[in-house]
Amino acid sequence: MSERSDVTIFVCVACRRRTGEGERAFDEPGRALVAALEERLAGGAATGVVVTPVECLAVCSRPCTVALSGGGKWTYLVGDLDAEAHADDILAAAKSFAATDNGIIPWKERPQAFRKGVVARVPPLGFRSFGDPS
Amino acid sequence: MSERSDVTIFVCVACRRRTGEGERAFDEPGRALVAALEERLAGGAATGVVVTPVECLAVCSRPCTVALSGGGKWTYLVGDLDAEAHADDILAAAKSFAATDNGIIPWKERPQAFRKGVVARVPPLGFRSFGDPS
Repeated sequence: MSERSDVTIFVCVACRRRTGEGERAFDEPGRALVAALEERLAGGAATGVVVTPVECLAVCSRPCTVALSGGGKWTYLVGDLDAEAHADDILAAAKSFAATDNGIIPWKERPQAFRKGVVARVPPLGFRSFGDPS
Repeated sequence: MSERSDVTIFVCVACRRRTGEGERAFDEPGRALVAALEERLAGGAATGVVVTPVECLAVCSRPCTVALSGGGKWTYLVGDLDAEAHADDILAAAKSFAATDNGIIPWKERPQAFRKGVVARVPPLGFRSFGDPS
């Protein structure tokens, strides 16, 4: 398996999203998102894409949150995602991500949800700043 | 070099922090933090710790932000950090992080700034949920 050509979508399944005022008025949108992504992948929507549910990505305030990760690439954390509205966008972004060398998806290929929803990004291990002589 | 025993502190040097009301009333606390960390490392404060300035970790709202990364470990993004107040804490956390197998620092070893400042965390590639048979 070549990790460089693959992409993992980590989906936070601990995120709670408010659905009303009551103490128990929330849903957990990550679980529906995992199901929606897996259904599409089983239907052949993309190859080389792995979906992994994670108990907590520690973002919490922007349910639900996913991370796109791949060997030697920047990792992107994106929040405010919903199964129904964004599953196709997330898979499209994952395919664009997989096609890059460094994980930085060209702006014009980024779904709207990814333009607005970035929570953070992290360079791959071994990254050196531009201009660094090493 | 064994990546598993090392830790990289990525420091966002693009973060702007408000210092007043004017259009140019901000500083860039990441640059001072890089200098403070490098000074301490040059003085022998820790071994196996690499500090890498990064042009943008895309957090922006919580200057300045750092990421702790290491091979095979969870990556932690932590914000609201300041060179003067937190450089020693960051190095202490980096040493604790390096000493873990998975990057999850025991709560009692986390400096206060790391208890309050977590922006996000991402599992290492290949991570599988607890209970997953694979």
